[in-house]
Amino acid sequence: MVNPTPASGVFDGPVHRFPVRVYFEDTDLSGVVYHANYLRFMERARSDMLGCVGIDQRAAFDSGEGVYAVADLSIKYRRPARLDDALTVVSRVQAVGAATATIHQAVMRGDELLTEATVTAAFLTREGRPRRQPKPWVEAFTRIASA
Amino acid sequence: MVNPTPASGVFDGPVHRFPVRVYFEDTDLSGVVYHANYLRFMERARSDMLGCVGIDQRAAFDSGEGVYAVADLSIKYRRPARLDDALTVVSRVQAVGAATATIHQAVMRGDELLTEATVTAAFLTREGRPRRQPKPWVEAFTRIASA
Amino acid sequence: MVNPTPASGVFDGPVHRFPVRVYFEDTDLSGVVYHANYLRFMERARSDMLGCVGIDQRAAFDSGEGVYAVADLSIKYRRPARLDDALTVVSRVQAVGAATATIHQAVMRGDELLTEATVTAAFLTREGRPRRQPKPWVEAFTRIASA
Amino acid sequence: MVNPTPASGVFDGPVHRFPVRVYFEDTDLSGVVYHANYLRFMERARSDMLGCVGIDQRAAFDSGEGVYAVADLSIKYRRPARLDDALTVVSRVQAVGAATATIHQAVMRGDELLTEATVTAAFLTREGRPRRQPKPWVEAFTRIASA
Repeated sequence: MVNPTPASGVFDGPVHRFPVRVYFEDTDLSGVVYHANYLRFMERARSDMLGCVGIDQRAAFDSGEGVYAVADLSIKYRRPARLDDALTVVSRVQAVGAATATIHQAVMRGDELLTEATVTAAFLTREGRPRRQPKPWVEAFTRIASA
Repeated sequence: MVNPTPASGVFDGPVHRFPVRVYFEDTDLSGVVYHANYLRFMERARSDMLGCVGIDQRAAFDSGEGVYAVADLSIKYRRPARLDDALTVVSRVQAVGAATATIHQAVMRGDELLTEATVTAAFLTREGRPRRQPKPWVEAFTRIASA
Repeated sequence: MVNPTPASGVFDGPVHRFPVRVYFEDTDLSGVVYHANYLRFMERARSDMLGCVGIDQRAAFDSGEGVYAVADLSIKYRRPARLDDALTVVSRVQAVGAATATIHQAVMRGDELLTEATVTAAFLTREGRPRRQPKPWVEAFTRIASA
Repeated sequence: MVNPTPASGVFDGPVHRFPVRVYFEDTDLSGVVYHANYLRFMERARSDMLGCVGIDQRAAFDSGEGVYAVADLSIKYRRPARLDDALTVVSRVQAVGAATATIHQAVMRGDELLTEATVTAAFLTREGRPRRQPKPWVEAFTRIASA
């Protein structure tokens, strides 16, 4: 018996699409997804996007090379997601700096825009100091952004 | 462009296999998955298993029919899961009562057993009183258990 | 034996101060608080602030009157919080509309600013449509803002 | 202006009492606390209990001495907790081994028992291997257990 594999996202030119299912854990008593949990969905999509272009965050952390941290984020909540919804996180790299990357992310339910954010992530040493992203990573981001 | 779909599980006889990827949100500063988060993984697998046999938990909740709540759970943590691991939650219905179902669940990384639990869920009215599970649901559980 | 009571915040003029302790659940493998969890800390502080001025969110939800949802949020992460830190969420109402309230929130460790956000919450019916906030709530917000 | 301090627990003989407030983040769409979140409440109480007897988990982790991980847990859910409830986690050390401690924990709302668990935590090296608890910690646990 082969184990099923976790969903991963796909690139469509510069746009990365990543699927998310809403479970009980994601909702709150108002019946819809708790606002902070969209940030978890978006982080899953960013991690998957990195993995798709060959960036191994765990190896980078384990080797002491560094780790991304969100530096800045703004988000608009337009319509709520509900239990059992199949969502798509649509991500697009907007800008790549020496030590940062800025990504636009939208959470969609089919054609319906639910939530939209701009996220800047900074690459940090394990001690939390800003550090240049590995050169191949910057190249990967630049390639994505201009695909 | 077709959106990718969230992963869902598959049945192999009476056994349901559901894939989970470990993200940053799941870990804690000790570097591995935080113990309470395995309960989230297991709940996702149970929800998926219900969906696979045609049980619509959201409709049942919305219509006021009822909702499952965990009544009892015991879990052993054997080996830790780490960032980026591809896990499989292996679930098997062990017993079906009028108002409860007992399910054995194991979290695997390939052939390696990480965590193992027995979970009893009770069907409740929206006011929290025990209620008989819908008859087609009991039949579905019974069919699974003896597949 | 009297049970200890959960911490609550206090007003200092228009400024509400609410204490938060960092636990394992709040951290991720990078060793510091996971970015989405500051939103949980800030929501606790807003809920406490409402409670302090006599607003009973649970009664309003149960009676069908309505519930707040975050409509818009922007946040800057300046320094990380770590396990066991004693933090203070400092909140200040910035603007009160008919159906919304905008609040500035800072997460401090002593005098050190860790994270800073502006959050707009909208009052919604249980069906998710915008609705005017109860008049006494608007008055309470206005009183706080000009204290 | 003095900052308010996070709530901490108190000992009453061998029994440790720790206060928890229920916030939106803790609930799910069924209107009550999501089952996995009681494990978070209980972990907060255990961490607080350790702090009360002078055990500094962060220093032990930072210095590479070791960290606790839950090895085994069984929990019964009797009554649900709801938004805004003031709960007490009542903890009692049941057994202390060389590398483990077993603790009974009950989540109470006033005199009402909501949830009850027995948790065994194991002390591990940063690499995840079992290791003897520091001798002063074992002594502290033994003192608590027989207070």
